Amino acid sequence: MPSLFRRLFGRGRRPRPSAPHIHPRSEAIAVARVELAELTPPTKVYLGQLAYLTLVLFENLSRAVALAPTTQAKTNLSRATAEVLEAHEALISELEDAGIDPVAAMEPFRAELDDFRRRTQGADYPETLVTCYLTGGFLTDFFTGLAAGLPKALGERVSALLDIDAGQDALVAELRTAIDASARLASRLAMWGRRLVGDTMLVARSSLVTGGRPPGEERIEPVFTELISAHTRRMDALGLTA
Amino acid sequence: MPSLFRRLFGRGRRPRPSAPHIHPRSEAIAVARVELAELTPPTKVYLGQLAYLTLVLFENLSRAVALAPTTQAKTNLSRATAEVLEAHEALISELEDAGIDPVAAMEPFRAELDDFRRRTQGADYPETLVTCYLTGGFLTDFFTGLAAGLPKALGERVSALLDIDAGQDALVAELRTAIDASARLASRLAMWGRRLVGDTMLVARSSLVTGGRPPGEERIEPVFTELISAHTRRMDALGLTA
Repeated sequence: MPSLFRRLFGRGRRPRPSAPHIHPRSEAIAVARVELAELTPPTKVYLGQLAYLTLVLFENLSRAVALAPTTQAKTNLSRATAEVLEAHEALISELEDAGIDPVAAMEPFRAELDDFRRRTQGADYPETLVTCYLTGGFLTDFFTGLAAGLPKALGERVSALLDIDAGQDALVAELRTAIDASARLASRLAMWGRRLVGDTMLVARSSLVTGGRPPGEERIEPVFTELISAHTRRMDALGLTA
Repeated sequence: MPSLFRRLFGRGRRPRPSAPHIHPRSEAIAVARVELAELTPPTKVYLGQLAYLTLVLFENLSRAVALAPTTQAKTNLSRATAEVLEAHEALISELEDAGIDPVAAMEPFRAELDDFRRRTQGADYPETLVTCYLTGGFLTDFFTGLAAGLPKALGERVSALLDIDAGQDALVAELRTAIDASARLASRLAMWGRRLVGDTMLVARSSLVTGGRPPGEERIEPVFTELISAHTRRMDALGLTA
């Protein structure tokens, strides 16, 4: 298996598969569920962080809607946006049902996640689409895996509400059209994708409960290896080199 | 009754009512339903224009979410945004159920409504909130009135999906906090509100089917008088002079 480094920074050109996997979640989630369950933070922390994160994903998607150059793209992307908003509202309801003030639960994550959004929002429409596709995919995979450490019924509900792949179809369709039209754009977006995965991994890693110690690398490494494999499959689906 | 001109451009200071009407729709809609039914465009035109308009209202609201300075405001405004997206999706479904291509139906309105959005989006967070509140309120009133000229069952479904007042509560709550803190802001937003109503009326007026003739003023005048009264009540609810 290629090293983490090579997966992240390798430059071998990958042929686009003829039948790409554009829902490349299941392996990454399965590994994360096994390895991460003990590192899942308490319910309030998990739900608060994820609720604020869905707001960040929403802001990126709504920016894509505003920048979209066609009516077709606008209405397709608005569907993806609605899915993320539904997830946000469901998380707010979960917090309320658990007797937790949603705003107080989200507040501690605002500064870090707003900063993440500013660093990753992208300079134009194609970069914003890539951001929505890659950061949304990576982080919903990661939090779906982490849900294994929540109380069982809650974990299942959260996994279900994070299953928002339909929006990914719209993102891939828009991106493929743009990438097929311009080799120069493909090269720029491949660079952008490599940069995004680093920032996204930092956000994921900071979500783990480690009791003040760095998490054991032997536990974390296979999870991130699988998450990055899923990331590479997303890049493949666009015909881009991960 | 004060003249249209005075209602639009009068500057008498209005005391904020102690129990403001922040859902000031019903009179305006009732008058519009009676007067506008014969001027309602064909189903494809009506639904296409309204579907694109809900995208514009969505873009304004999502901009407000992105600009919101607090977690509380972000999550409250995201609820309003979800309501508008639900209306957009329901309109797309109505078009599809009627055998009409949604994108083809929306396309003719894109240039005018994108231009409307650019002119009315506001320079900062408070102005964007005022835009969402006033243009959203005015145009959903107007299109709810126009729905009287659609086939009956369709008209009733469209009226129901345009009943998206809950989002207005969030907008009013945010704006009141900002306005109470700054008399200078109140004055600037009152100016902004006067400018918005002009642009918004032009969009409404261009939606009427007039067979190439200007619509009879005797028919239009009472409708716009009522729509502007509802606009004035919205301004009152903010403590602003209309």
